[in-house]
Parts: sequence; C-alpha cells; structure tokens
Amino acid sequence: MAEKTKIAIVGFGNVGRGVYQSIKKNPDMELGCILTRDIPRVLRDFKSYDPSFDTLNIGNAESESDIRIACGRADVAILCGGSATDIPIQGPKFVRYFHTVDSFDTHAKIPEYFAGMNRVAKENKSVSIISAGWDPGTFSVERVNGNSILPGSEKYTFWGRGVSQGHSDAIRRIPGVADAIQYTVPVQTALDLVRSGSNPKLTTRQKHIRECFVALKPGADGARVVGDIVNMPNYFLDYDTAVIFETLEQIAERKKQMPHAGFVLTSGQTGSGNKAGIEYRNHMECNPEFTGSILVACARAAHRLSLEGRTGAFTMLDLSPALLSPLSREELLKHWM
Amino acid sequence: MAEKTKIAIVGFGNVGRGVYQSIKKNPDMELGCILTRDIPRVLRDFKSYDPSFDTLNIGNAESESDIRIACGRADVAILCGGSATDIPIQGPKFVRYFHTVDSFDTHAKIPEYFAGMNRVAKENKSVSIISAGWDPGTFSVERVNGNSILPGSEKYTFWGRGVSQGHSDAIRRIPGVADAIQYTVPVQTALDLVRSGSNPKLTTRQKHIRECFVALKPGADGARVVGDIVNMPNYFLDYDTAVIFETLEQIAERKKQMPHAGFVLTSGQTGSGNKAGIEYRNHMECNPEFTGSILVACARAAHRLSLEGRTGAFTMLDLSPALLSPLSREELLKHWM
Repeated sequence: MAEKTKIAIVGFGNVGRGVYQSIKKNPDMELGCILTRDIPRVLRDFKSYDPSFDTLNIGNAESESDIRIACGRADVAILCGGSATDIPIQGPKFVRYFHTVDSFDTHAKIPEYFAGMNRVAKENKSVSIISAGWDPGTFSVERVNGNSILPGSEKYTFWGRGVSQGHSDAIRRIPGVADAIQYTVPVQTALDLVRSGSNPKLTTRQKHIRECFVALKPGADGARVVGDIVNMPNYFLDYDTAVIFETLEQIAERKKQMPHAGFVLTSGQTGSGNKAGIEYRNHMECNPEFTGSILVACARAAHRLSLEGRTGAFTMLDLSPALLSPLSREELLKHWM
Repeated sequence: MAEKTKIAIVGFGNVGRGVYQSIKKNPDMELGCILTRDIPRVLRDFKSYDPSFDTLNIGNAESESDIRIACGRADVAILCGGSATDIPIQGPKFVRYFHTVDSFDTHAKIPEYFAGMNRVAKENKSVSIISAGWDPGTFSVERVNGNSILPGSEKYTFWGRGVSQGHSDAIRRIPGVADAIQYTVPVQTALDLVRSGSNPKLTTRQKHIRECFVALKPGADGARVVGDIVNMPNYFLDYDTAVIFETLEQIAERKKQMPHAGFVLTSGQTGSGNKAGIEYRNHMECNPEFTGSILVACARAAHRLSLEGRTGAFTMLDLSPALLSPLSREELLKHWM
C-alpha cells in the first residue's frame, strides 16, 4: 500500500472534529497534527473524545515554530475555520508550508480568493484546493455537469431542511433573545414545479421557508422580537418566516444535532427538444461531519496532484472522480464503471 | 473564441442521431463528417431530417480512403455502434486516426477493452474516452463520488422506467412474436427502503419489474409465448415479468419514444456513525439523445486532453467537471461554484 496522506487539521471546531472522524474511516489517511488557537480547550475536548490521542500532536495555529514542526508531520493542511475572517488569512499563510484544502464559501469572493491562493501556491510549489465541501463543492460539480450534459438548461438549488448557522447567529444578536436556532426548509410545491420540467422562475420567497426556534430572555417582548426577526433585511425579509418560542433546554437539545440536506436540479432539453432532467440530493444527520468527509477526499486529491508535480489553486471542478477515490484504477475499472 | 471541436460521427443509428442533434446545441462543437456502413440509408434519413446537410460529408465507415478523408475533417470520432460487435472492432481502428469517444457498455469486459485501447491510443498519440454515457458513465461517476465521500457505504442502482433494447430484442426472437417492446421498472418499495437508510440486501427480483408489450403473429399460441418470455434465463426468469398483448400498431406507436430514467443511491454513515445519503436521478424523454449529449461533452474533454499533450485511454472517472464544461474558468469561478 502506498504511503498514507498525513493531515494537519487547522481549527478544531465542528468541521475540524468532522475531519478528525473522517480520517479514522479512511485507511489511506492519517492524522499528523492539530493546530488550534485554543490548545487548552482542544485538550479538554480530547479527554471526552479520544483519551488515547497523543496530545503532543496539538500545536498553536498562530505560532510560527509550531507550524514548522507540524509541517514535518503532515502533507496536507485542512483549514477548518470560517470564511469571513479565518480562511482568507490562514489560506495564504499555510499554503507556504503545506498543500491545503479549505471550504471558503463566500461565493462572490471566490474568483479573488482563487487568484491569490493560486499565486502563493505556485510560488511555494504547493497545491491548494479551495471552496470544497457540498455548497460550494459537490453541488458546484453537479450544477456544472448538469449544464455540460444539457446546455441551455435551467439549474436550481434548494437547501434543507437543515440548520443555518449564519441565520441562527443573526437571531441570537437580537435584544431579548437568549438562544435560537434556524432551519432552512425547501418549499415542496416549488420543488415539485421544478421536477415537472416547466422551468419556473422562482423568487427567493417561493423557494425556501425559514423556521426560527427562539428562547426569550426573562421579560423580553416576544412580539417585538418576532418583528425584529421577520423584518431583518437579507436574512429574513424576503422569506416567509415562522418564529416558534421554546425553552432554553429545548433549543439546547436542538443544537445537539446538525442535520442538513439539499438538492441540485437541472432541467432542460436534449437535441431535438425532448425534455430531460437530473436531480441530485444529499442528506445528512451531521452537516460538519459530512463536510469533513468531503474535505478529506479532497486532501487525497491534493496529495495526488502534488505527486504529479502540479502546483497552484484548484476547485472541485478540477478534480476527477478517480483523483478523489481511495480505489485503485484496477478496482475502478473492474467494479465501479 | 477557441477553435471548434470537429466531430466525426461513426454509425448513424439512434445514438448517432442523438450526437448530431447535440452538436447543434453546443456552439463550440462542429460536425466534421458522418461515417456509416449504409450511405444510401443515411442520405434518405437526411432528406427528412436536415435537407440542408452537405451530403458530401458522408463517407463509408469501412473504406480506408473515406476514413483518411474524414480524418482531415474531424478531431474526435464518436463511435455510435453497439458494444457487442461494432465498438470492439471500430475502437482500435479509429483511434489510429482520431481521438475517440465510445459508449462501450459490456461491464465485464471494460478492463480488457481499456487496456487494448490504451495501448493503441498511446502508440498513435491519441486520446480515447471509453464507456461514456450514463451507465456506464455519469452513473459510474456518482457511484465513485458517493464512495469517496462516504467510505464503507452501500451503493444501489435502479433503472427505469424505460425501454431496454436488449430485452426487447430477446422477446422479438421468440417464435410467434411479431414485435415487442420491454420496459424496465424500478420497484417503488425497494427504492423507499433504500432511501430509509436501512441498507437492505435486495435481490434482482426485488429491485426491478419487467413489463413486456407483445404483438403476436396470426395464429401464434399466446400462452406458450408468455411461458417462453417469463422463463427465459438471464433476461426474465429472475424477475417478476408482466406480458401484455397489443396490436402491431400499438407497439409501433410505443417504439416512437425512447424514454428512460435511473437512480444511483449511496447510503452510509459519516465519521461518528451519523447517517448520510446521496441520491442521483436522471430522466429523459429520449434516451439516445441524452446519451449523445454526454458523448459530445466527452468529445470536448478528449480534444482538451489532447491539447494538453495527454494520450491513452480514459473513462469518465478521469474527467473533471471543468474538462467537460463549455464554460471558461472565469465563468465557472464567478457563476458556477
């Protein structure tokens, strides 16, 4: 068996833990080290998590000397921080020492981030796979493949039912809110309309409903909180939004699970006007574990691209299925075609 | 705009016509020529089909001199014949003159066919994409990607509702049968069981039903024909098979349409045992046009691989979405991630 791909996990939040779990399910992958800004917290985590873990392999993500030590222990760094402030700084920094995989998901800034990472990666002879995960990521793959097979087709993406962290955070910032969790729910009639092949034009409101479960602080004005939520621009104003009040305990229980799901639909016609469609759906009980699984498959691809002598930035649109797969060419041809 | 990819269509049956129609939908593709064993039939076809078509571009697929002329007019030959007798002979022959794309679908023989095409393609500095289409093809891609994201998962493929040419042919060979068409139908309860995430073991009989529409010859013994069909080994014996008698006209009407569909389902768990699943479905009113559309996207990839200096055999498992897509890197990063 070929040498294992050694992974540095950078950032040990939900996605970092998902990557950690996924590495254990992939025999060709190995954890090299964990880099974090909060070593004591990660050490505490591991006591409950995996008491046998060698805590010498945990380093400070902001210490140049710790990064250099980690560099000797890992081939690929998977950057598990957020797109707003973590990845834009960590990407260019870590790609000087490792091949990198990240889940940068600020769609509007992807071209700019790609260009920057491509330059630094090439300068350092590294491979950097950016914007991996399921959206952007496998959903991008399905949108592009759908368009390649059915040029001129319409593409539709639906998300949910699942938790949106960004929308949950936005509700938590409202005065009077003690805690909250928000679920994005696709509208069934809209999905059915797309499936019918009628290529409808759908507004934001027609595609998704937003369900908000909110625990109020003592004495808070519930009606005012509802108004603050449903009228919040960008987040809720353009949607039909339901606000349901629950206890802190109920919200805490909900937050233990992070299910999600989504759909990519391509609807068009083949050459002489015959209708055709493609529908891709994923669903998961634990969103960060699912994302972590995709990031680990991309780490395999990054390592292989580097062994081929490739450098620079890539997205999942540049990765073939064989490059992502743990299976050998012989196995793929014999059993998987 | 970059130079167009010029296509030679080899064989002008249902799939060849699908490729012809698809080329017209892809502005970066151009028909170079058609090579056929039956020029008079194709000329007759074109009178109804596209009277403006320059019939000078039609050559004899078995004439070495016609192939040489075609070679000057096309970059990629799409081989549209059958896997039993056409492609195994045409593949090694045409890859000496063109990059090739074919839909070789005898699963058990794919490793051997790949090895042979790889050798001849490399000798002739050609690119050959074998076994393209939807199964094998895009379905192979989904099975492999599902396994990469969810290692240890179960994979399921269902076909239909749609026409199986092989099974229709098998019925037509039975004495007393004037004409027939066979539909493969996935069993809804089996699909639902797979979707539930219970990873069932399903027998052949549990997954698909076979519906046979048959027109009898005058005086034929219907009961005996039913027996001959439902007891036919490999084709029907392992299935619940329904035989419905219709008139020749009804069968002829059915044969005007070639709808099909299928499902690839991946069902497994992420790292710490949370369930996850992926479902891919395609459906089409005209199966050969849909297959033709995929073959044309693969011709684009073959041409691009050759421009990168690559040679040898490939499958769709080796093709990235970007390689198949008519869209530029800039468009992909800006609008499709």
